Amino acid sequence: MVDYTFMSGNGDTIDPAFPLHQGGKIEVRPTVRIRDREGLALAYTPGVARVSSAIAENPELAREYTWKSNTVLVVTDGTAVLGLGDIGPEAALPVMEGKALLFKEFGGVDAVPICLSTKDVDEIVETVIRIAPAYGGVNLEDISAPRCFEIEERLDAALDIPVFHDDQHGTAVVVLAALLNAARVVGRPISDLRAVVSGAGAAGVAVTDILLEAGIGDIAVGDSVGIISSSREDLTPVKAALAARTNRLDIEGSIEEAMAGADVFIGLSAGEVSDEAVASMAPSAIVFALANPDPEIHPEVAMRTAVVVATGRSDFPNQINNVLAFPGIFRGALDVRATTITKGMKLAAAQAIADVVADELAPDLIVPSVFDPRVGVAVPRAVAAAAHAEGVARR
Amino acid sequence: MVDYTFMSGNGDTIDPAFPLHQGGKIEVRPTVRIRDREGLALAYTPGVARVSSAIAENPELAREYTWKSNTVLVVTDGTAVLGLGDIGPEAALPVMEGKALLFKEFGGVDAVPICLSTKDVDEIVETVIRIAPAYGGVNLEDISAPRCFEIEERLDAALDIPVFHDDQHGTAVVVLAALLNAARVVGRPISDLRAVVSGAGAAGVAVTDILLEAGIGDIAVGDSVGIISSSREDLTPVKAALAARTNRLDIEGSIEEAMAGADVFIGLSAGEVSDEAVASMAPSAIVFALANPDPEIHPEVAMRTAVVVATGRSDFPNQINNVLAFPGIFRGALDVRATTITKGMKLAAAQAIADVVADELAPDLIVPSVFDPRVGVAVPRAVAAAAHAEGVARR
Repeated sequence: MVDYTFMSGNGDTIDPAFPLHQGGKIEVRPTVRIRDREGLALAYTPGVARVSSAIAENPELAREYTWKSNTVLVVTDGTAVLGLGDIGPEAALPVMEGKALLFKEFGGVDAVPICLSTKDVDEIVETVIRIAPAYGGVNLEDISAPRCFEIEERLDAALDIPVFHDDQHGTAVVVLAALLNAARVVGRPISDLRAVVSGAGAAGVAVTDILLEAGIGDIAVGDSVGIISSSREDLTPVKAALAARTNRLDIEGSIEEAMAGADVFIGLSAGEVSDEAVASMAPSAIVFALANPDPEIHPEVAMRTAVVVATGRSDFPNQINNVLAFPGIFRGALDVRATTITKGMKLAAAQAIADVVADELAPDLIVPSVFDPRVGVAVPRAVAAAAHAEGVARR
Repeated sequence: MVDYTFMSGNGDTIDPAFPLHQGGKIEVRPTVRIRDREGLALAYTPGVARVSSAIAENPELAREYTWKSNTVLVVTDGTAVLGLGDIGPEAALPVMEGKALLFKEFGGVDAVPICLSTKDVDEIVETVIRIAPAYGGVNLEDISAPRCFEIEERLDAALDIPVFHDDQHGTAVVVLAALLNAARVVGRPISDLRAVVSGAGAAGVAVTDILLEAGIGDIAVGDSVGIISSSREDLTPVKAALAARTNRLDIEGSIEEAMAGADVFIGLSAGEVSDEAVASMAPSAIVFALANPDPEIHPEVAMRTAVVVATGRSDFPNQINNVLAFPGIFRGALDVRATTITKGMKLAAAQAIADVVADELAPDLIVPSVFDPRVGVAVPRAVAAAAHAEGVARR
């Protein structure tokens, strides 16, 4: 165990997060050593001119002779940073640096933070397109819904490199991985399960989509007003579309009311959920209380009636953490020079994460630890294979 | 001496620039090690949220707790890459990576390549402004004239961080450093010297400006048509302004004609210059033939009549190389959190470079080697002091 506690000058303990962040958490370093004039003449003029000329003849060679093939932009506008909301681009930077750190440590991917001083959807899209040539992928981060859906869709259509909004799809992939294993623990096929999702933002929409894709029985999604149903007249276009593909039982009312008899609860908002609501669920209930740092219900309280409980926190069992997904998904996509990240690649990533602990399954072990080295091997392989199978790999 | 030669599979020697560039020349690396859940909880959620909240309260703290204070964007649109011209953003990337490598090796500065897919001045300016919040400076690179002048000027006005077009000012600083020492070698005050500059692009304009600022006697600038004088009717606005502040003798005609009796020739274009033109210069002439890789006149030919000869090449004495300037200029500017890079800071950098070899001056030693470790100490100190003196330092 590393000791992260620090003392200030007068001996008081201080928040160790601050000294750890001093000067930032990432740096740019040369991968070649220039020790003399000859090396300089190869890495810079005149040698570099021969490499640049070759790429000018055939731009695809940029993937061989530059960092492009291993590098992604981590792009935010600072509007939905963690649970802090719209805190602006400078304040978002420590989170983006953290992401870059995790990309490298868990995926060997070079990631560059871009914190935008605009929140305009058109401007964000055109800016990312303009700066994309030197990069092999785009990870969107902490951009508020519903703007994030349009931004991702337009960038994915415009660029021939993978575009991935981690708050949507990273979360969705790990939730599906956890649910696949939770279903095995309670001995039910996923197609039998009825789920209630609390939260219809970036994560709520993506989780719902991937669970439907994976064949879940039914799903009802709630926002701050209550369960989203086609009878509601206050729905945004995104939520109206959600109503059309969810809630086959036409449930109306509050999220807690919808939980009565449900098999699965997935909390993706800051709203609380009562002990009684969990107790009203079907036998062998599965509860993912993922709000961070305060889960929708304390896991120990949920465990009074639920069989499997997961949170977003590292200090309880079953941590649903995007770190299990995004580094390996980009590693796999970059390895085969995928042009996009398909549904199939996301499903393959979820299955791969689930399979890592398939032989060890227990109510308190449905996902691997983020430090489990098998994850970093399994996810890229599965994603690369799926990219080939779906025809989006370039090599 | 490191051996940079490589063999291909069948034993043939291959251009060693290509294997050296395989996979690129730079990477992004964590500066903190995350070895366990506790470290993860500090560098990422929940610990990072406390740092982000502090920055949201006071955005200036981004300079303490992120990489911003040590990081610059290296921005190009690929329109004027080395001597290769408009080769596009992908082909420009190896040069930008080389620049990033030199920034780190010679200045300890983290640099991130941005290769733009637009050549529109307005779009370039607005794009750089939008992506600037996470960065402490902007180094413009290989952007064609006259667009580069407007882009630099508008960005410098819009941003509170240093903006520096290296092809202009890096070259100008090192040329001035070399000329200060060359003047000492020939025993003339710089105010006595008449110079002819070949080339009225980014470097030509900036070199002319800094030499005027340093008090050179007179200067005539030539482009592909000939010497720029107020009698010419084909001048762009930039060249018309140049005509107004140069060529006090009202020289007309070719560059070679203007060299007759001149003390200094500075070649910054690909045009050739004849032995006869150099022979027609004043006694103790100074010739900087900086076209790369082919100098305007072979240095050994120039040495038949000139006393001091410099080139851009590493295989002749007196290499005029921007690496002497840009890493230290940004190091000094970042160290004091300068809001801009003033004329005074550039002059100070030139003087500091010149002074490094003041005690060793000789016709074949007017600038330090790029590997001289004294440069990396002297230039940042001089630039930081000048920033303070000029009131643009924030600490």
